[in-house]
Amino acid sequence: MANPEIAKLGYVSLVTPDLEASLHFFKEVIGLEETVEIDGVHYLRAWGDFQHHTLSIEKGDSGHVKYIGWRTKNRKDVGEFRELLENDGVQVDYYAAGETPGIGEAIRFRLPSGHTFELYYDIERPAPEEHQKSVLKNQTYKAWAKGISPRRLDHVNIHTTTDAGITYEFLKELGFNMREYLRDDNGDIIAGWMSVTQLVHDVALAQKPSLPSPARIHHISYWSDDSQDILRAADILSENNIKFIGPGKHGISQALYLYVMDPGSGFRVELFTGGYLIFEPDWEPVEWTMKERVFGNTYWGDSVQDKELNNITIEAK
Amino acid sequence: MANPEIAKLGYVSLVTPDLEASLHFFKEVIGLEETVEIDGVHYLRAWGDFQHHTLSIEKGDSGHVKYIGWRTKNRKDVGEFRELLENDGVQVDYYAAGETPGIGEAIRFRLPSGHTFELYYDIERPAPEEHQKSVLKNQTYKAWAKGISPRRLDHVNIHTTTDAGITYEFLKELGFNMREYLRDDNGDIIAGWMSVTQLVHDVALAQKPSLPSPARIHHISYWSDDSQDILRAADILSENNIKFIGPGKHGISQALYLYVMDPGSGFRVELFTGGYLIFEPDWEPVEWTMKERVFGNTYWGDSVQDKELNNITIEAK
Amino acid sequence: MANPEIAKLGYVSLVTPDLEASLHFFKEVIGLEETVEIDGVHYLRAWGDFQHHTLSIEKGDSGHVKYIGWRTKNRKDVGEFRELLENDGVQVDYYAAGETPGIGEAIRFRLPSGHTFELYYDIERPAPEEHQKSVLKNQTYKAWAKGISPRRLDHVNIHTTTDAGITYEFLKELGFNMREYLRDDNGDIIAGWMSVTQLVHDVALAQKPSLPSPARIHHISYWSDDSQDILRAADILSENNIKFIGPGKHGISQALYLYVMDPGSGFRVELFTGGYLIFEPDWEPVEWTMKERVFGNTYWGDSVQDKELNNITIEAK
Amino acid sequence: MANPEIAKLGYVSLVTPDLEASLHFFKEVIGLEETVEIDGVHYLRAWGDFQHHTLSIEKGDSGHVKYIGWRTKNRKDVGEFRELLENDGVQVDYYAAGETPGIGEAIRFRLPSGHTFELYYDIERPAPEEHQKSVLKNQTYKAWAKGISPRRLDHVNIHTTTDAGITYEFLKELGFNMREYLRDDNGDIIAGWMSVTQLVHDVALAQKPSLPSPARIHHISYWSDDSQDILRAADILSENNIKFIGPGKHGISQALYLYVMDPGSGFRVELFTGGYLIFEPDWEPVEWTMKERVFGNTYWGDSVQDKELNNITIEAK
Repeated sequence: MANPEIAKLGYVSLVTPDLEASLHFFKEVIGLEETVEIDGVHYLRAWGDFQHHTLSIEKGDSGHVKYIGWRTKNRKDVGEFRELLENDGVQVDYYAAGETPGIGEAIRFRLPSGHTFELYYDIERPAPEEHQKSVLKNQTYKAWAKGISPRRLDHVNIHTTTDAGITYEFLKELGFNMREYLRDDNGDIIAGWMSVTQLVHDVALAQKPSLPSPARIHHISYWSDDSQDILRAADILSENNIKFIGPGKHGISQALYLYVMDPGSGFRVELFTGGYLIFEPDWEPVEWTMKERVFGNTYWGDSVQDKELNNITIEAK
Repeated sequence: MANPEIAKLGYVSLVTPDLEASLHFFKEVIGLEETVEIDGVHYLRAWGDFQHHTLSIEKGDSGHVKYIGWRTKNRKDVGEFRELLENDGVQVDYYAAGETPGIGEAIRFRLPSGHTFELYYDIERPAPEEHQKSVLKNQTYKAWAKGISPRRLDHVNIHTTTDAGITYEFLKELGFNMREYLRDDNGDIIAGWMSVTQLVHDVALAQKPSLPSPARIHHISYWSDDSQDILRAADILSENNIKFIGPGKHGISQALYLYVMDPGSGFRVELFTGGYLIFEPDWEPVEWTMKERVFGNTYWGDSVQDKELNNITIEAK
Repeated sequence: MANPEIAKLGYVSLVTPDLEASLHFFKEVIGLEETVEIDGVHYLRAWGDFQHHTLSIEKGDSGHVKYIGWRTKNRKDVGEFRELLENDGVQVDYYAAGETPGIGEAIRFRLPSGHTFELYYDIERPAPEEHQKSVLKNQTYKAWAKGISPRRLDHVNIHTTTDAGITYEFLKELGFNMREYLRDDNGDIIAGWMSVTQLVHDVALAQKPSLPSPARIHHISYWSDDSQDILRAADILSENNIKFIGPGKHGISQALYLYVMDPGSGFRVELFTGGYLIFEPDWEPVEWTMKERVFGNTYWGDSVQDKELNNITIEAK
Repeated sequence: MANPEIAKLGYVSLVTPDLEASLHFFKEVIGLEETVEIDGVHYLRAWGDFQHHTLSIEKGDSGHVKYIGWRTKNRKDVGEFRELLENDGVQVDYYAAGETPGIGEAIRFRLPSGHTFELYYDIERPAPEEHQKSVLKNQTYKAWAKGISPRRLDHVNIHTTTDAGITYEFLKELGFNMREYLRDDNGDIIAGWMSVTQLVHDVALAQKPSLPSPARIHHISYWSDDSQDILRAADILSENNIKFIGPGKHGISQALYLYVMDPGSGFRVELFTGGYLIFEPDWEPVEWTMKERVFGNTYWGDSVQDKELNNITIEAK
């Protein structure tokens, strides 16, 4: 029997102390669409996201992320992952279909890094209202309705105070492939870019011993099609008096980036385009040394190094 | 045991009556790099292609394509596909490692449409010469060295006079997923966009009863990162006195396109960017009707309809 | 004493039979801002326009343009032009300051082609409301607030059934320089691109004997900074179910274009970027022959030739 | 009689200690074309420059600039400027036609800031060789032949240790208009952006008391049409192992920038696009205070502040 498999990153569930500010940021400035609001939780997606939501936002005491959802390749995979994880001694919580609106039955568990992953297969695809619907049959909403208007969710970047190597192994068992990594002078991998898809990364995990709590979220990333969209985003953010880092181009992943923080929650969003896809089945992970680290982070442009804005992360509870 | 799987489109082997003109076009105007020339066959790749070649060019009596190469996911898959195909009564030719320079052992067979596919797993990755090498560890050649300079091979588009439905079934058995298709007024699918990757298509097959020979190749496509790169390509082609169709945006695949013919062989190249990726494991193929056909082909821009340049195809021998 | 001089194109006054549709088109789809509405006339400008308005829209029986306003270099020039024109036997109407809101004293007269030009010097520069104001001191409104969001008015294109040569001479006396022109096989100039600024044209005039009324307006043009903005405009128009011609690149002027008609009035707008500036004081006008006409109109891309949408013009009353 | 007038920036004459390196940089990396080489002086221009050259390069002991050439509006203006300047006690040197290849009779004089300006009117427009010639009648060379391939010379930026205010007055008498300026806390203007054209600046002059010699050149700027061209330039420079500052967007002028130094001479080139044009005859210069200085220099992106590369200037002899 084939192993259960993860198909893709699904969504991130964000809690914000300032719901109004966060909704303004994500809906008007970033330009996500709201699928639905249920019990105070707002479910958002980009115009090119094909499913129920890629970000949920609700009010809470502090800015943090509850869990990161991943869609499996098959319906049966949810149960099979549950069995595999429990056999490995991992505690798994089960959620019946619909406990999260739009999502079928799901399991949640913690990575060794302290982050909670959710796995699910079934997901609703509510149609947009008629006036919001794209004229294209293969696209959800009309593009460019408001704000920056990225196409789709791309990846999530997480930090841990624990030994990241243990979590890389855990993620490999879940089916994630290491694509690029940073090795420190002791020979340990302290940052890894991993994917189940043909993107360079669906998740990046970095080891940061000095964080104020064990598991943090650095950012989620939304993808735009063109470099010019990222420059236009810089104009839009500036006109909204919102600070950001970038634009710059990563060496690792080769993508053009711009980092901006949700003023409501402190959650960072990376606006992202370019980069390469990995179709080779025997991809050899690309190693970057500490000497190459700055170049790997910023090939050119506004550097992510030594920027205060880059050192703030929110908790993964 | 898991089924054998195809990982990706590998290359196309082109024969041209005017080798000099074709090499000038692909090397200087398109801007591909030459990995090596062996026995009169020139092996080319784009700066972001990770392997030995994505296009080979050699001299012959007429412009045609010999075969389309696909890389399997595992080394064992080549033999397993051979067994499966022979069990199905398909004639399979075997090529020992190295018969095609840079490629390991391979099999070739004909689709019902008349096109020859090659499957292989092992492939060499020769390093570029030092002065051509990218400063990025995850990139093969320096970008933008000459001409249009696309990043990588994207897909192949083929035509047949036979019943395309038979070949869609054949391709599904090889692991290709139907992503979008055009259904005619009789209910038959007469154009299908299929992929083994998360691209909307690695191969598109259209049924064209009026072609002068049964199996034709409409184009191969090279990918650029930005829309502006396609507009710059239009300038470059114009300055080289080479006609083209485009730029325009497909409804199907949502990609920006520009079609241009190699003056040496008559082989069409699509310069291509944008579009969407498919991460959903239960993707429902998008159906386009004959009424929607023109819109599906050209969402906006210079239409591919009724253009003489669009009706010429070269033979797949 | 120095001759009076025209500094720049100021505005176009549009009358529309469907005010609601025209305002929706110009404000929400094109993305112009409304400076003010007075007595049913809506005064609009782009985010980078520095003055009171560049387009006025009011309701009337048919789609037409009342006059085309031009700003002089000096306050005294308005009176001097009046004197010069009257000395030449041209009938000149005088308008006291404020008759057109935001505009100082002005004169209006007809070109031999039948189009009405207005000359004025004084103009108000009302500040945007605080929340609309750009964070940049050298920019009027926040960029990218809605719709296509071009930067500024660029030029106007007019058609006549009369002998265009007479009007070219008239425009030269007003200070317009011929920059490029189309000469027909009889040796007559039948289309001319003329400017008082360093743009290739502030006004283009073409001779079209078959028009239904003597003086017509083909389009006004708004400028965007980047080619990608024009491609994004094509997406936005498509999502609004509004047809257009383009994108394409003119040979004449070298600019990227997209033509779209206001659904309310039938008035055409060209979305425009690229091209060249003329700093040479002894610029030799570039001649295009009838054989080169198609190439001059469309260097590449979606051709303006033989498009129904391109043959509709509105009357200049 | 009308005052003599300057029409446009013409060229900069660069001396480099490493001619080979400078020629490689300007011809292969920047992508300028060589009009001609005479007596060891190489005359270069961009594909959209309409005249003989916009940069000359010759070998010398140190990297420096000899003079900055400006074209007058009329032939008679050269002599009239000579008379005016001599009447004001300025020493003027006269050069007969052809002393600088391609240039007619010319005068040279020093600004109070110590920089040498040349004024000329006549200039040759040699045609490119047939294979280099653009297919467009209104363009000099084929675009995109090699390297970054900007369209045209844009402006020059100069520094002085003297009281800049004296030179601003001098430049105003030559016909330059102040467009934007930086006022220090003492009320003095210490940086000014001035133009004779409709560009925001043809020349910027900054007062920098700590420079090692009185008159320095900070950079010349070449214009590209699209923002994407500047991002592509960043890739090209990186692949050539050449460091740069940017990309970033100026508040002052609103232009996208990238600064790079010629490895041969230390002369800085700004790659530049976007920004606005000034058509208003009564433009009110935009004032920036010391508090707004950083924002004025860098609206967003890689900051020009505190970058070592930004503090090196070459001498204006």
